[in-house]
Amino acid sequence: RMQLARWIESTFLQRFIIAVILLNSAVLGLETFPGIMAEHGATLKWIDRTCLAIFVLELGIKMAAYRQLFWRNGWNWFDFLVVAVALVPGSGPLAILRTFRVFRVLRLLTALPALRRVVAAFLHSIPGLTGVIMIMAIFFFTAGVLATHLFGSAFPHWFGNLGESLYSLFQIMTLESWSMGIARPVMDVYPWAWAFFIPFIVIATFTILNLFIGIIVSTMQE
Amino acid sequence: RMQLARWIESTFLQRFIIAVILLNSAVLGLETFPGIMAEHGATLKWIDRTCLAIFVLELGIKMAAYRQLFWRNGWNWFDFLVVAVALVPGSGPLAILRTFRVFRVLRLLTALPALRRVVAAFLHSIPGLTGVIMIMAIFFFTAGVLATHLFGSAFPHWFGNLGESLYSLFQIMTLESWSMGIARPVMDVYPWAWAFFIPFIVIATFTILNLFIGIIVSTMQE
Amino acid sequence: RMQLARWIESTFLQRFIIAVILLNSAVLGLETFPGIMAEHGATLKWIDRTCLAIFVLELGIKMAAYRQLFWRNGWNWFDFLVVAVALVPGSGPLAILRTFRVFRVLRLLTALPALRRVVAAFLHSIPGLTGVIMIMAIFFFTAGVLATHLFGSAFPHWFGNLGESLYSLFQIMTLESWSMGIARPVMDVYPWAWAFFIPFIVIATFTILNLFIGIIVSTMQE
Amino acid sequence: RMQLARWIESTFLQRFIIAVILLNSAVLGLETFPGIMAEHGATLKWIDRTCLAIFVLELGIKMAAYRQLFWRNGWNWFDFLVVAVALVPGSGPLAILRTFRVFRVLRLLTALPALRRVVAAFLHSIPGLTGVIMIMAIFFFTAGVLATHLFGSAFPHWFGNLGESLYSLFQIMTLESWSMGIARPVMDVYPWAWAFFIPFIVIATFTILNLFIGIIVSTMQE
Ligand code: NA
Ligand code: NA
Repeated sequence: RMQLARWIESTFLQRFIIAVILLNSAVLGLETFPGIMAEHGATLKWIDRTCLAIFVLELGIKMAAYRQLFWRNGWNWFDFLVVAVALVPGSGPLAILRTFRVFRVLRLLTALPALRRVVAAFLHSIPGLTGVIMIMAIFFFTAGVLATHLFGSAFPHWFGNLGESLYSLFQIMTLESWSMGIARPVMDVYPWAWAFFIPFIVIATFTILNLFIGIIVSTMQE
Repeated sequence: RMQLARWIESTFLQRFIIAVILLNSAVLGLETFPGIMAEHGATLKWIDRTCLAIFVLELGIKMAAYRQLFWRNGWNWFDFLVVAVALVPGSGPLAILRTFRVFRVLRLLTALPALRRVVAAFLHSIPGLTGVIMIMAIFFFTAGVLATHLFGSAFPHWFGNLGESLYSLFQIMTLESWSMGIARPVMDVYPWAWAFFIPFIVIATFTILNLFIGIIVSTMQE
Repeated sequence: RMQLARWIESTFLQRFIIAVILLNSAVLGLETFPGIMAEHGATLKWIDRTCLAIFVLELGIKMAAYRQLFWRNGWNWFDFLVVAVALVPGSGPLAILRTFRVFRVLRLLTALPALRRVVAAFLHSIPGLTGVIMIMAIFFFTAGVLATHLFGSAFPHWFGNLGESLYSLFQIMTLESWSMGIARPVMDVYPWAWAFFIPFIVIATFTILNLFIGIIVSTMQE
Repeated sequence: RMQLARWIESTFLQRFIIAVILLNSAVLGLETFPGIMAEHGATLKWIDRTCLAIFVLELGIKMAAYRQLFWRNGWNWFDFLVVAVALVPGSGPLAILRTFRVFRVLRLLTALPALRRVVAAFLHSIPGLTGVIMIMAIFFFTAGVLATHLFGSAFPHWFGNLGESLYSLFQIMTLESWSMGIARPVMDVYPWAWAFFIPFIVIATFTILNLFIGIIVSTMQE
């Protein structure tokens, strides 16, 4: 079993798997062009299925070689899910899940050690941000409930319930059409609405800024 | 009295209060969905009132325990105002204030010590920014008066008086529809208007940048 | 003469001048509201003229006290120009210059030593940015000429000559309606236009980023 | 030959070339104004051709002086291509290439040593970003294929194939009209579409942020 593990982790096989992922990615990309699909659809589907078979085989070998240890590694879970999703039947209630087989492209992130390290660095920076993220969540929740009460009856499409309001506030936080698209129409009905939107934008931007600075400072300390 | 204070600050009661805030937040969120409100409105209102009663009780005990010391703590002022606002009569000129009872969700920021620290860090970074904020205010005021004189007669909706102008300049500073929405229409009437808008954007952005850098540098020095 | 200089720079007179600037600013702000202007216009104009008289007097005393030294100070030049502009006749070809008397509000920046220092820090950070600013100018000029040749004939309003193109590129650099407003309509005529706009945005953003980082790094070294 | 090289690199000739580039840039800028072109077109074209002749001569001398060494320098390659493009015939399939003669303005970046250093610093910061750029590319590719499968049939103009989707996702990443222009119309057909767009924006912004921080940190270490 250790020999099997050594073989599957060998440089040659690793490179082969990366090549298969790249080939599969190219096929997935080409499949999005209706013209190419009409002419070479059958070939592309055949390559796609072959790539899938190789991934299933690779995973099967890894599972046989590592047994319980296989599930201890987060990257393996990711590989397993991405492959498993492609085996979901193409019709029925779960058919939409098959679309997620394009996440197979993301296996490049787990297969290339250099990228794996960058992704790991990303994920490691998240715990240090919990405080700011929780404050952001509480702030958004409060602003969402408030906006629904204030503007929901006159603008049900934007602030009709907490869900709509949170989406609209996210849009406003990204500064997308916040004034011409949302705040000015709202101010035509409620002239004091700027007293909600401007502080919201200032606080949201300032909080994002602090999130940002938190990452810079913690990155520099390492 | 010290025993009362120790009891109300005990881990168990603190956790109980946090649970009540979370429950109250969930209720406040559910109340924004008209469908849920139509069916379970009475229950939700009852839970809301029970939570309020618990908060009043908690505040009463704290006030009894700490007396004058209670008012020395800024967080207590916040808790007091947020609870007091819910006791405002639901009709009459102050009815709008009742909407502010959703700020009760923000009590999470004062109840969880970890978040309290992050909020305190936010607030502590503000004094160091006074200089840049004052410059920004002076700059906005000047630009607002100027824009009203220059464009107010032709575009009363955007630059009709200092208030309208300041709002429009804030929108322009966030870069929201500044050109297609505002500057291009203005330039159709005053072709040289770009000589106002472009320097305004450059200076406003540069000032914000300095604000930003001020925060980074002062955060790093700590 | 030295006594005169000491007198005009005394804390009491400095505070008096700051108060006059604040009063004048308030008047300039109130003058932007047509309703207030209709009712109290005469009073406001009278206060405005009185403030101006005080500024002229202050400047005259300073000029008498410092003689040639007066002109060695950049802040004095600023004060002189701002006051001089208000003495321009209200009719005739220079009438528009009178609008610039609102820059008198900016005298707060020169009168308050704390703000003066922040503004000086701003101005001092500019020389270190010359390199990046020159590169930006060359890049914009090249992109402007290129855009005029490529899109000018089909979109004269946006890219009709170098001036129009530079304005449109500035808008695109701020990411305002760059795609829905400009690039998508252009791509309906020239389908390959994305090959101009996307690199332009990437390079412009990257250059701004370097400008930004240059400021952070040089601020930290101090 | 060494004497020739010393002569062509002499301060006087360098300044002369910079003056010619500036003159040529001015001409290229003036040529974009149809009115000026109608009146002085012949003169401008004559100056343009004279400048080109000087550049060809300069390059010829440099090539004669340095021989093989000439091609070892990346900046020389740039100068050569920019001049060569102007010699392409004005009609025929390559005519569009002639537009690129405006890149001659960019020769200022190679002629002024101060700017050359800034550009070199830009280019040197790119290799350190390879990891984040590759992750960005993989992320964009995956999101593009996914968006085409999810929204392509209902919105062929935005997500009809991988190319259209990548362009639209780039627009969304710049936050340009992402909600009012794209996500809200898409959500009218697929109400759960926010579950694609919001994570996309959060991850794309977070990755750009990490790119950004990577540059800051590596700049500071130097
Ligand atoms: Na924007
Ligand atoms: Na927009």
